[in-house]
Amino acid sequence: MSSLLMRGFEVSEFENRTARAQRMMAEKKLDAIFLTTEPNFRYFTGFKSQFWHSPTRPWFVVVPAEGKPIMVIPEIGVSSMKQTWIEDIRSWAAPCPEDDGISLLATTINELPKKFGRIGATLGIESHLRMPNANFSELRQGVSSEFVDIALEMHALRQIKSQAEIAKTREICRITNIGFNKIPGYACIGMTEREICKRFSMNMLAAGADETPFIIAGSGPDAIGEILTGPSDRAMQEGDLLMIDTGAVWDGYFSDFDRNWAFGHASEQTKAAYRATYEATTKGFEAAKPGNTTTDIYNAMWQVLEAAGALGNDVGRIGHGLGMELTERPSNTATDNTLLVPGMVMTLEPGMNYAPGKMMLHEENIVITEDGSEWLSERAEPELIIIK
Amino acid sequence: MSSLLMRGFEVSEFENRTARAQRMMAEKKLDAIFLTTEPNFRYFTGFKSQFWHSPTRPWFVVVPAEGKPIMVIPEIGVSSMKQTWIEDIRSWAAPCPEDDGISLLATTINELPKKFGRIGATLGIESHLRMPNANFSELRQGVSSEFVDIALEMHALRQIKSQAEIAKTREICRITNIGFNKIPGYACIGMTEREICKRFSMNMLAAGADETPFIIAGSGPDAIGEILTGPSDRAMQEGDLLMIDTGAVWDGYFSDFDRNWAFGHASEQTKAAYRATYEATTKGFEAAKPGNTTTDIYNAMWQVLEAAGALGNDVGRIGHGLGMELTERPSNTATDNTLLVPGMVMTLEPGMNYAPGKMMLHEENIVITEDGSEWLSERAEPELIIIK
Repeated sequence: MSSLLMRGFEVSEFENRTARAQRMMAEKKLDAIFLTTEPNFRYFTGFKSQFWHSPTRPWFVVVPAEGKPIMVIPEIGVSSMKQTWIEDIRSWAAPCPEDDGISLLATTINELPKKFGRIGATLGIESHLRMPNANFSELRQGVSSEFVDIALEMHALRQIKSQAEIAKTREICRITNIGFNKIPGYACIGMTEREICKRFSMNMLAAGADETPFIIAGSGPDAIGEILTGPSDRAMQEGDLLMIDTGAVWDGYFSDFDRNWAFGHASEQTKAAYRATYEATTKGFEAAKPGNTTTDIYNAMWQVLEAAGALGNDVGRIGHGLGMELTERPSNTATDNTLLVPGMVMTLEPGMNYAPGKMMLHEENIVITEDGSEWLSERAEPELIIIK
Repeated sequence: MSSLLMRGFEVSEFENRTARAQRMMAEKKLDAIFLTTEPNFRYFTGFKSQFWHSPTRPWFVVVPAEGKPIMVIPEIGVSSMKQTWIEDIRSWAAPCPEDDGISLLATTINELPKKFGRIGATLGIESHLRMPNANFSELRQGVSSEFVDIALEMHALRQIKSQAEIAKTREICRITNIGFNKIPGYACIGMTEREICKRFSMNMLAAGADETPFIIAGSGPDAIGEILTGPSDRAMQEGDLLMIDTGAVWDGYFSDFDRNWAFGHASEQTKAAYRATYEATTKGFEAAKPGNTTTDIYNAMWQVLEAAGALGNDVGRIGHGLGMELTERPSNTATDNTLLVPGMVMTLEPGMNYAPGKMMLHEENIVITEDGSEWLSERAEPELIIIK
């Protein structure tokens, strides 16, 4: 099944993104910003490629204070890159250990009008530079301007999504729900986590997902204990709880939500924990509106979990931004305090340890609207599904 | 279908890796090395998780000059991490914008015996630090030793694979061949690149692949022009050439090879280009033996391509290392000159522009043995397959 949505974006989408970035640059007194990671590169250029799985070659984009972004990329990318809206594409023969694009990048930056002598780069919070640290030091030497951190500013730009972006997330959430809804029809005692997840993956691909890069599972007698290493070859047994969390992708945008099922039966304690995370999601959704903050969402949800006997939460947050990456800023925590504005796509992810070694985790996806929020995922059932 | 191979590794595998790293550290006069990326972290700890798709939290491992590695990780990972061979696991409540593990990491490093006052970190060639640049600067401030680049040393350690690692690559190459061999049975005129690739992905998953993160396609009348942005919604037409390149994964190890097909017919020029890349692969395989270098492989292959009229090669190399990442060091180039030793897993990837806008690309996977090399992929047909 193919989606009816348009792939990619109109050029106006990239013009708007660039204009927003240039307003930020004017406020921060920057002559340009320079970016290295796949999502930031794609955000301004529209270039979407699986080639980023190869860690060998760095790719750079420079957004000047005026005009279109400039690409500084390996030669292998040039003919593909000409399909984008970018006109100024500069390349070098990579891999080139002696000078992997650094002198070309320095020249590109130095040629720009120098009003402030300041260049933005993602150096701080929840960022990294996808280039050798030593090459960034060389770049600093070779560029006659100061480098200034814009990690938070880039997160802020990207966390407010356009309607075209939201449509893509809505589409992958729809596809993800199709995959989840099939699970009770085939998952059974004796089947392994890995077998269930693989069929889930294939069902999402068949329903229209481009990729299913993130599918984790946890299972155990009446509860799950950890969630990072699955799916494993553990076979389902009578009385097991199974949790599957996924991030699937359509046209470069992620879904990120999970579902829980019990096999045969579940304890009252586990059913109650499920109900509590469901109720927390409801309260989180009610608090998710413009003018409130991520901390309001956190407080609304945590109150429910605490009243239900939560012993703690190792995850460190109960939801986060979502978009071109599986997890983006901001986070729903006790101290995050990010103001919610329309266009923010978020997960509500109430989780708790309700007994030692027993964890319950829910997750749904929403978008902040003008007067509240809207579900992007079709909500889980209010009561734990028991697969007979 | 499930593989009969063991997942993961015996503890001795990690002990050997650590011992090899510690010999390198003694030579380089290092008190410890510190690593941040998924493959380097997994290399020493055995921790395999899809959670790395979330860019929010940094994860660190410190390998001291003696004894087992030490993990410095977000709290969310602790219970999962206890399943590994590592004993010393330190954690903080991440995400924590004020101090995302840096003071804990600094303390961990400072507590180690200080013989040389030098700590290794991947700062140079084909590396990056998966942590904010500003946090690395703080770490430098907080650690009373000097940081020294070990990017090349880490590549050198990882590029010689154990038999257990090679077995995993052999397994995913077997699975990848199964997927490729099915394509002529269903690909047909009217089917899009995306449809063919999706079925290919599902066939590899059904045949035992864990993930199929990299599947790119290029197609066009009698030739392909670019290879980075597909698969697209372009439908196959009579006379088209189709190339699909994939990196599939079994138990954390990649395959990386491609196949070409024509629909209905192909020009003599395109068939000849196919034959030339096939012949180049043969010559590359013959040159791939201990004592020779990556440049010997390059020369053996490039000679064939040049004689066949190659106009150039935008890829910048004709093969590379392969393992936990889709592309690893070294590269088969005119200047790389890396000595081949048994245990190196490589791709042979002869590619050329044989006419303006017409590219032909082959790829196979091999492992260097004691007296030559061994195919890991089942070779492509010597003549271009024409799908009727």
